[in-house]
Amino acid sequence: MQRQDFRHWQAQFLRLRSNKIFETVVIAIIVLSALMVGAKTYEETNRFATILNFMDWFVTLFFLLEISIRLVAEPRLRDFFKSGWNIFDFIIVVASLLPVESSETVLIARLLRVFRVLRLVSMVPELRMLMNALLKALPRMGYVALFMFIIFYIYGAVGSFMFHDVNPFYWDNIAISVLTLFRIATFESWTAIMYETMEVYPLSWIYYVSFIFLSAFIFLNMMIGIVLEVMQKESAAFEVEQGEGEAADIKYLRQHVTDMQSQLSRMESMLEKQSERRE
Amino acid sequence: MQRQDFRHWQAQFLRLRSNKIFETVVIAIIVLSALMVGAKTYEETNRFATILNFMDWFVTLFFLLEISIRLVAEPRLRDFFKSGWNIFDFIIVVASLLPVESSETVLIARLLRVFRVLRLVSMVPELRMLMNALLKALPRMGYVALFMFIIFYIYGAVGSFMFHDVNPFYWDNIAISVLTLFRIATFESWTAIMYETMEVYPLSWIYYVSFIFLSAFIFLNMMIGIVLEVMQKESAAFEVEQGEGEAADIKYLRQHVTDMQSQLSRMESMLEKQSERRE
Amino acid sequence: MQRQDFRHWQAQFLRLRSNKIFETVVIAIIVLSALMVGAKTYEETNRFATILNFMDWFVTLFFLLEISIRLVAEPRLRDFFKSGWNIFDFIIVVASLLPVESSETVLIARLLRVFRVLRLVSMVPELRMLMNALLKALPRMGYVALFMFIIFYIYGAVGSFMFHDVNPFYWDNIAISVLTLFRIATFESWTAIMYETMEVYPLSWIYYVSFIFLSAFIFLNMMIGIVLEVMQKESAAFEVEQGEGEAADIKYLRQHVTDMQSQLSRMESMLEKQSERRE
Amino acid sequence: MQRQDFRHWQAQFLRLRSNKIFETVVIAIIVLSALMVGAKTYEETNRFATILNFMDWFVTLFFLLEISIRLVAEPRLRDFFKSGWNIFDFIIVVASLLPVESSETVLIARLLRVFRVLRLVSMVPELRMLMNALLKALPRMGYVALFMFIIFYIYGAVGSFMFHDVNPFYWDNIAISVLTLFRIATFESWTAIMYETMEVYPLSWIYYVSFIFLSAFIFLNMMIGIVLEVMQKESAAFEVEQGEGEAADIKYLRQHVTDMQSQLSRMESMLEKQSERRE
Repeated sequence: MQRQDFRHWQAQFLRLRSNKIFETVVIAIIVLSALMVGAKTYEETNRFATILNFMDWFVTLFFLLEISIRLVAEPRLRDFFKSGWNIFDFIIVVASLLPVESSETVLIARLLRVFRVLRLVSMVPELRMLMNALLKALPRMGYVALFMFIIFYIYGAVGSFMFHDVNPFYWDNIAISVLTLFRIATFESWTAIMYETMEVYPLSWIYYVSFIFLSAFIFLNMMIGIVLEVMQKESAAFEVEQGEGEAADIKYLRQHVTDMQSQLSRMESMLEKQSERRE
Repeated sequence: MQRQDFRHWQAQFLRLRSNKIFETVVIAIIVLSALMVGAKTYEETNRFATILNFMDWFVTLFFLLEISIRLVAEPRLRDFFKSGWNIFDFIIVVASLLPVESSETVLIARLLRVFRVLRLVSMVPELRMLMNALLKALPRMGYVALFMFIIFYIYGAVGSFMFHDVNPFYWDNIAISVLTLFRIATFESWTAIMYETMEVYPLSWIYYVSFIFLSAFIFLNMMIGIVLEVMQKESAAFEVEQGEGEAADIKYLRQHVTDMQSQLSRMESMLEKQSERRE
Repeated sequence: MQRQDFRHWQAQFLRLRSNKIFETVVIAIIVLSALMVGAKTYEETNRFATILNFMDWFVTLFFLLEISIRLVAEPRLRDFFKSGWNIFDFIIVVASLLPVESSETVLIARLLRVFRVLRLVSMVPELRMLMNALLKALPRMGYVALFMFIIFYIYGAVGSFMFHDVNPFYWDNIAISVLTLFRIATFESWTAIMYETMEVYPLSWIYYVSFIFLSAFIFLNMMIGIVLEVMQKESAAFEVEQGEGEAADIKYLRQHVTDMQSQLSRMESMLEKQSERRE
Repeated sequence: MQRQDFRHWQAQFLRLRSNKIFETVVIAIIVLSALMVGAKTYEETNRFATILNFMDWFVTLFFLLEISIRLVAEPRLRDFFKSGWNIFDFIIVVASLLPVESSETVLIARLLRVFRVLRLVSMVPELRMLMNALLKALPRMGYVALFMFIIFYIYGAVGSFMFHDVNPFYWDNIAISVLTLFRIATFESWTAIMYETMEVYPLSWIYYVSFIFLSAFIFLNMMIGIVLEVMQKESAAFEVEQGEGEAADIKYLRQHVTDMQSQLSRMESMLEKQSERRE
């Protein structure tokens, strides 16, 4: 009986949670509350802040309630922490509950408050999808990063060996050279660095131009790879949905035409026998 | 009878409006008239300006006439203002009619004249489509903007807490930090800002490089999202158009093959009966 | 007989022209000859230049011969100049034949030599395709340019009205403001311009950030538009090529299944009559 | 018998090579070893370096063993060097074996060590695919490069002829002008160069703006070209895989429907004969 009450109450809570207006209000509170933390760096406080602070506590309580319900609904506690999203939500809620205005660790506490804006990701399904897309693209990104590492490393090594004496600020060792190359890949004042080395090595423009072409190519490849992966999944899902109907129809046709042909053969032989007898 | 005259006149007007040559002339007048307003900041006037001014008044009258016809053609006045495009056109036409050379509010009047270039959007169907594309992409953009807000906000907060004392011009509070981060996202002299903080925090390059990767990823995601959305709509429209024919054919085949099979079964049983009797 | 000789000779010439090795040699000569003109700005001459000059004259003669053959092959002279590519080739060949080392107009003659590199476009079919793609994309580009003009114009007008007194170098009139905005759209030192106006109008960052978002959106739209257009054409061509086979097969099936059904009906009625009679 | 032993041993070796954990360990050793070479530019050595050095020799031996097995497995030695990847692997392994700490050619030896990071490409199949994609895109890239050469060359020639006296640092000859144009194409401080020439030629902004539009268009074209090429191959492979089933089914249907129709015609004629006789 109590169990049924809980179910009923839980269902109503879920209905509230997925209500578009309620969602918008909660998002607005989180965003405004986040902007408030930003405004606090101006060292200003006013009545609006007090109201917002109150509403922020309401949102914190709401998230606490929500995660409690999800925890209780789970048959076994361990299962709850098997989902990455559940752990993510749990950490954010716990971090939100930590006392903020404590005297000593005020800086850490403030930074913790900042991360409470991540509750938006828990709240909005579309943001979860974006995060999922980011996570799914990671393995492929890993290989592209490896490829990038090779190219940056070789160019960095060559750069630090050759241009070391030209300007140690940019080319002192491989690590600094790789940072300089990342800067060149973003086209940030790369010509100033090039003109400097071209005074000592007039052909060093080949180094820069070839690096820019290669890094642009990798960026393109990365982009195309992600686009293709996303599109393949979309089109595969579309195939399963749409294509199955047609494929099933054609399979049906093939089966039944075969059946009909054997039936016709049987009938033809019967007709032939009839004709033979009569003759 | 009068009603019919109006219809006839209206049809001829619409034919004139959709005439390619007339459209090109009106576009040329609007563009030249816009360039004239630009030239007025040089404080020059000549005979060509007088002629163009006259033509511009003709175009204003044309738009007034056009919107009047559309207003009259509507059965109820309220319906006219239900379409967003009608409201847009109405505001531009009314703004075009406001007296320009009044002595006091000359600056506002001039700005109003500038917005008259938006009549191009009313005139050219392709520009309306571009505007529609912009508006349709807004909801998805909204979620990407929310995601961007979270990342910029967290990085902004961390940046303002950590780098505040390094250079208050860039990192004084969250708001200024977010503007600095937007600047970094456009690769604008970001290394100068990085080298500055690296003198105090040598590992702060992680902050910048990770931020650049994340913001590039979001930009990619935004782009891919829009491309996919547009393509899905295109391909869905294509499916409906092309695919229906084939799907209908296959459905037809399935139906008729099934019919034929039952017919064959009936015939076979008849033949069997004939054969049995004769034996 | 003479006509046939010409045909034979023309065919052999066309075979030579489409020969891959010959094409590569001609491309190499044109590129090297172009690099030579570049080297001439160093005011150097040597034996290699003399040989290359000789080969360049050979290429010029080859192009003259080729265009002559195409001109003679045309039944009517007027038809030859109906194709845009023919006019393009003709102008380049004629420009190549103009005497280069004349004393007075040496600068113009040199520039004319530079344009001879366009013979590459006449020679390589793939470059013609790229040029065609450029020309085909022009109409759609025109509308995007119109849209861009509106946005640049409105922002330029607002900018020149508001920021005129902050820095006339960037915002003196609409024309200069539009050039400044183009610079901002390429992210070129845009923050320096922003910080300058933010000292007078602290909220002017909205102007810059909104402009950057809008111009990036237009660029995206332009890009997507071209990609989609190219892909639609590709997929349409693919449909016609591949799809026709299957569509024809299904049409064939539909036709013949319909025929078979009427045949079966005739047969069934015959069988029924036979059965009726016997009973 | 010995042959069989070798086969067995080879199979086990291949199983080890394709083991995911083993692959990860080898990648980690190569990456760490590469970072070590980078760290050596700091002139630091420690115990960790000694261990890593030992592990690096193990990896070198592993690669030597692997390439030996592949060499021995080949029936004829000449066939081994027909594959580009085999040559690539062979050169890297041989270069890895060259003694590093020789006194004289220490700089060259160090650079050789850097290139040992390319063993990652030999090891990871995904990186080979990325390299293959890079190599496959080369022919198309070649034509785009030719197109780019024409545009850069013509703009470079015009630039060096016109702006030579404005600033010889940027426009001294065609070669330097082309480098300046490449810089402009990356939006690197291009306005500074423009403002300089605009003081002498006020309309020179047309030169810069048109060049930026053209080079952006070429970049787009290059990108779209690669995307389309990759997608066509993907979809072609998909067609062969998926489409064949359906196409075969339809071919089967067509064949058998034709057969059935001729069978029906035979049967109809028999039935007609039966009916005629009886009447």
